[in-house]
Amino acid sequence: MKSLDIRTSSRTDFVNITAQVRQCVSESGVNSGLVVVYVPHTTAGVTINEAADPDVVFDMTNYFDKLVPWNNNYRHGEGNSAAHIKTTMVGSSVSIPIENGKMALGVWQGIFFCDFDGPRNRQCYLTITFND
Amino acid sequence: MKSLDIRTSSRTDFVNITAQVRQCVSESGVNSGLVVVYVPHTTAGVTINEAADPDVVFDMTNYFDKLVPWNNNYRHGEGNSAAHIKTTMVGSSVSIPIENGKMALGVWQGIFFCDFDGPRNRQCYLTITFND
Amino acid sequence: MKSLDIRTSSRTDFVNITAQVRQCVSESGVNSGLVVVYVPHTTAGVTINEAADPDVVFDMTNYFDKLVPWNNNYRHGEGNSAAHIKTTMVGSSVSIPIENGKMALGVWQGIFFCDFDGPRNRQCYLTITFND
Repeated sequence: MKSLDIRTSSRTDFVNITAQVRQCVSESGVNSGLVVVYVPHTTAGVTINEAADPDVVFDMTNYFDKLVPWNNNYRHGEGNSAAHIKTTMVGSSVSIPIENGKMALGVWQGIFFCDFDGPRNRQCYLTITFND
Repeated sequence: MKSLDIRTSSRTDFVNITAQVRQCVSESGVNSGLVVVYVPHTTAGVTINEAADPDVVFDMTNYFDKLVPWNNNYRHGEGNSAAHIKTTMVGSSVSIPIENGKMALGVWQGIFFCDFDGPRNRQCYLTITFND
Repeated sequence: MKSLDIRTSSRTDFVNITAQVRQCVSESGVNSGLVVVYVPHTTAGVTINEAADPDVVFDMTNYFDKLVPWNNNYRHGEGNSAAHIKTTMVGSSVSIPIENGKMALGVWQGIFFCDFDGPRNRQCYLTITFND
């Protein structure tokens, strides 16, 4: 298991970590298998979506903030229930096939660390399983 | 890794791919492990839900289209931000246990390829990991 | 594959199953790999979120019930379409790294079985893959 350090810069911040994951897969020497990106936080998750036009991430973060408002008569005393809810909607891990030593990402796909309660110093874990 | 070709027939279209995944698992000869179904697109995902009554899929697709409206002052120039958002809500992969050579799906469960910006020719990848 | 029996106690009920999953991982003797928790139902899922303050789960379940109302002109005759939709939003499995014989959960994280159409007797399956 490898760990990545991530510095987020705003309350809601999707950080493209594709290059770091790609490098770990390459260094593992695994030819065929899976890489699982896991987020050990409860107010941040991970997703796969378009990495070409930054407006896609803008629209996604904007929409999630509208769908799950920050103020909504929540009980949780820390005031960040919206971030917990968005984490569960997006999920805490993604699994990507490895084929011929490379992630089988689609041409427009990137891997995004999704902070919903930043800015903070965050982490994610990479686990690689192999079939050969 | 195996690849499945999928033809979707409407803008939002959930296609039941359970039979194709079952066949791949059977052909793999794997007795115990996991099958991961991965979608390499950014406006389509994959989910597991009821495959018995088609009204369940009708209600799901209808509800997602209400929850994430097509027109919402999005910035992304292609006009399909709603499809990107729904993809992140549903997710890009599912993982299903294999036991005694078969997927351990529940009795009502089926695997659905979820196109949110069809109709298109799409793909998904199947990766099988084994424990024996 | 191991199976856990879960008794839920209300219509929407998030049950903390972290201790049971931890015990299965410990008994497996696996040092490094992944544990996948899989739910074989279509009106229940699984998520990872804060297990310290019960108000987080209260806010989450309350919010999901608001976001996906029980009555919404659904077609599905059983009347539980909302539970099917929430299951797809939350997902049917979680994958957690195992390192040094233990799940690499974050300090605030717990694993929650999410019943959206209880109370019922439910199950989930644990599959452990190993790298060593």
